[in-house]
Amino acid sequence: MNVAGSATPLVRRLVSGDAKALARSISLVEAESPEGRAILKAVYPTTGRSLVVGITGPPGAGKSSLVSRMVAAWRRRGEKVGIIAVDPSSAFSGGAILGDRIRMQEHCLDAGVFIRSMATRGHFGGVSRACRDVVDLLDAAGFGIILIETVGVGQDEVEVVQVADLVLVVLPPGQGDDIQAIKAGILEIADLFVINKADREGADRLASELQAMLALSPDPQTARTPILKTVATTGEGVEELMAGVDRRRRRKENAAARREKERRRSRERFLELFREGLYRRARAACLKNSEVDAIAEDLARRKRDPYSAAEEVLGRVRFPVARRKAAANGKRR
Amino acid sequence: MNVAGSATPLVRRLVSGDAKALARSISLVEAESPEGRAILKAVYPTTGRSLVVGITGPPGAGKSSLVSRMVAAWRRRGEKVGIIAVDPSSAFSGGAILGDRIRMQEHCLDAGVFIRSMATRGHFGGVSRACRDVVDLLDAAGFGIILIETVGVGQDEVEVVQVADLVLVVLPPGQGDDIQAIKAGILEIADLFVINKADREGADRLASELQAMLALSPDPQTARTPILKTVATTGEGVEELMAGVDRRRRRKENAAARREKERRRSRERFLELFREGLYRRARAACLKNSEVDAIAEDLARRKRDPYSAAEEVLGRVRFPVARRKAAANGKRR
Repeated sequence: MNVAGSATPLVRRLVSGDAKALARSISLVEAESPEGRAILKAVYPTTGRSLVVGITGPPGAGKSSLVSRMVAAWRRRGEKVGIIAVDPSSAFSGGAILGDRIRMQEHCLDAGVFIRSMATRGHFGGVSRACRDVVDLLDAAGFGIILIETVGVGQDEVEVVQVADLVLVVLPPGQGDDIQAIKAGILEIADLFVINKADREGADRLASELQAMLALSPDPQTARTPILKTVATTGEGVEELMAGVDRRRRRKENAAARREKERRRSRERFLELFREGLYRRARAACLKNSEVDAIAEDLARRKRDPYSAAEEVLGRVRFPVARRKAAANGKRR
Repeated sequence: MNVAGSATPLVRRLVSGDAKALARSISLVEAESPEGRAILKAVYPTTGRSLVVGITGPPGAGKSSLVSRMVAAWRRRGEKVGIIAVDPSSAFSGGAILGDRIRMQEHCLDAGVFIRSMATRGHFGGVSRACRDVVDLLDAAGFGIILIETVGVGQDEVEVVQVADLVLVVLPPGQGDDIQAIKAGILEIADLFVINKADREGADRLASELQAMLALSPDPQTARTPILKTVATTGEGVEELMAGVDRRRRRKENAAARREKERRRSRERFLELFREGLYRRARAACLKNSEVDAIAEDLARRKRDPYSAAEEVLGRVRFPVARRKAAANGKRR
């Protein structure tokens, strides 16, 4: 079967915005199949047109309700919206996630809205890569707005930020130790803070505490990060939020800054693929599972140490320029 | 300078429990210096004796106060305790962390307690590795108990769990959407749940909700995970917690299970070092920064795609067994 030949009609349907072709393409990409890779290569030149908005914040902040409101606003403007829900959850706490998804029900029959969940567990260092691939597919399929929704304040969020053009951090008031809740490196990643459930007690206090923390930032742009208030359940403040996103969007679209960001991201993406490819090829070529098992056994018994074992196996791989250098050194001796 | 020669007196002092030698060794290891690596190789055979306890939970759960209580209890038994605070925070939200550390002040003049903070930002996929290295050094220095304290419910926690023998998940009651706060894959990583601040409203409700969620687990061991209640500020429930840890410790020390876990971890650790080593050597040998910049520029302009670019550079690396296979294929043709 010719991969390129079989991918081409699918790519054509994908680029025309066919939802089934999009879903199929995402599945092929997630399965890391050669077809998936061929699709990514084919669509790459057409990408880079969408606005990618990351939405993060602690559980219970009301992110999904807010996303639902924002999607409705974009749909009224005629924008197609793709949503990637990055889901760090375990299999059997699925109830809560289901709850989140149900809130999105109103959009699930709308062909202008495409929702896809993405599990992150077991994908060490792979969240941003998997996200980027799906963003490219949505972008190629003509979704002008792509939302990436994540839960929590961990590594995943920092990775997702690398993919987004604009990051909204959603916080709920009245979680007791408000300052503590904000501590985990979330300040610098936000382009816009949204205090949702702003009709609850503590919203003003949270806003002023946040303001005070931002004011301490050495980076003037971080210090000026806007703080907005919304009540997603009633829609209060959503119009102002959309206006805020538009303002930030225009600023982000400053050509030089955008090109610089695009270059930095492209660099990271390429190096990630290079790193992953190296490991796969090396595993396939010179490190069998049986040897890994034997090494693990020796390490567990403290008969060898992991550093020496890694160095020994690494010694089997030869890199072209390194070889030339070694030859030159040999001549000099 | 002979690395092994210069490391040996330091290693000797480290193994004798000298705190200055320990701090120096950690710095050398964190700087990824050859001396640091030599120390890790030298001490590896002596490691594997400590109990490594991971403590995680959302911000505001009172983890640091609880750790302080547990440390005091271990100290009364004459155990030396090493603490690794994995800190995902940004530079300028440092106030909150300082607060956490101040609570540990009572132990900071005690030579039987060693506290070290470890920043995680920028260490993609490297938290568990950095932790493991420091655990080995503490282990070699005779700390029988090693606590790893992390904040949040993200990737860092999942990684830290790979290093710990026993994981305590600390939860505070009354955070509104309790079920939501627990959703991020935290159920299976816990060996013991601790509801701290148990004198606050909602502690019983949280306990019964948690119980109900655990009961749904397909894994019978997860379903039986103990749930304890403490008030770290008064010390209430800490004795029961210590007894719970002792019980779990004895169960964990079941020889066959421990050996199996040790093998699995050794395997992961070796593969991590192998993967990282491959990338470093490949970067040094056949991928200059100037070429990476040129590729990034092409990608940003959509003149090339990242997949083809990565494959092209990967083609320069030759793996020995792959070459033999290629030769065999050649003969067959």
